Amino acid sequence: MSAQYPSILLENAVNEFAKLPGIGKKTALRLVLHLLRQNSVNVENFLSAIATLKHEVKYCSLCHNISDSEVCSICSDKTRDASLVCVVENVKEVMAIEGTMQFKGLYHVLGGIISPIDGIGPSDLEIDSLVERVKTGDIKEVILALSATMEGDTTNFYIYRKLQPYDVKVSIIARGVSIGDEIEYADEVTLGRSILNRTPFDETYRLTSK
Amino acid sequence: MSAQYPSILLENAVNEFAKLPGIGKKTALRLVLHLLRQNSVNVENFLSAIATLKHEVKYCSLCHNISDSEVCSICSDKTRDASLVCVVENVKEVMAIEGTMQFKGLYHVLGGIISPIDGIGPSDLEIDSLVERVKTGDIKEVILALSATMEGDTTNFYIYRKLQPYDVKVSIIARGVSIGDEIEYADEVTLGRSILNRTPFDETYRLTSK
Repeated sequence: MSAQYPSILLENAVNEFAKLPGIGKKTALRLVLHLLRQNSVNVENFLSAIATLKHEVKYCSLCHNISDSEVCSICSDKTRDASLVCVVENVKEVMAIEGTMQFKGLYHVLGGIISPIDGIGPSDLEIDSLVERVKTGDIKEVILALSATMEGDTTNFYIYRKLQPYDVKVSIIARGVSIGDEIEYADEVTLGRSILNRTPFDETYRLTSK
Repeated sequence: MSAQYPSILLENAVNEFAKLPGIGKKTALRLVLHLLRQNSVNVENFLSAIATLKHEVKYCSLCHNISDSEVCSICSDKTRDASLVCVVENVKEVMAIEGTMQFKGLYHVLGGIISPIDGIGPSDLEIDSLVERVKTGDIKEVILALSATMEGDTTNFYIYRKLQPYDVKVSIIARGVSIGDEIEYADEVTLGRSILNRTPFDETYRLTSK
């Protein structure tokens, strides 16, 4: 659509929406016109939910996950294993791992991964605070659960080196063929890695059947 | 993702975004986290563009299209043919038809189509104001350009009947096989209609070649 907006106000709103990731001009227009059709209370609720989040968002002082309190509900849960810390990129990964119901330790949210191309270096991430947590000596194992990309690998290696002086086990989540994937279509690196890191069949069975 | 949000504020913002059409919970979370990473000025710009549009939006007193002024730029353009009025559902259709560069008349924006299932009747639409425009006698032809759906057809027929007492030609945009479509895959109703409404080849050629 070679768009000629009939109103500057409309055009501004569409342009702002189109700055969001994955939202093009056409979708932005559809969303803006949808909001325009809603009553003022609904639009006010939409705007204030975002404004309130932006102004009042807090981060857990321990794991740096988004939280409504000084220490988040996961870190303050006494039934969880505080000796096990899973390092993740962001709140989305915390939610994804919590969704698996397979992890009962704590988290450490880096707030990103090392990515020179985006100008993100180690000092922009919560790596020093991870080292500080490990220094206290309560943590027995750090599990690296970052993306299986070049940036993720770089960050994994950086953290691994930073933690080497301390008495802590550093592990990484298993890389392998995704459940549901056909072997024929798995990429060679993944397939090779999943053969090298094969697990005893009975152990795997026990893990997935519970 | 069986989502357990770590923060009520985050959950509220995600839920508000997920109310937008075509935005699921996962996309909503991605958009909210994107906004959270932006600096406050950018988020403020986003929110104020929507709030300003919602509070200050005006509609052209003549054609009811979204406009920044009392009479929109199309209706106040003296070079356009005021005897020709194209009836459309919404501002999106005005923009789409303007994009074709094939129409130099004016518009009349209904603000929707008759849809009993959504509780939208003729009185919710700008149909009476269309009749008022026709009554003045300046309009020679009304072109119906609504969706080729049941609701569009119902609205077309309703408007046609309302305009019958007046000395105005009522036409409807051509229905036929879309340019680029293969005949083999065209639906029967469309194909049948496009055979019945066939146009002289030389006339079609003249229209598309200019």
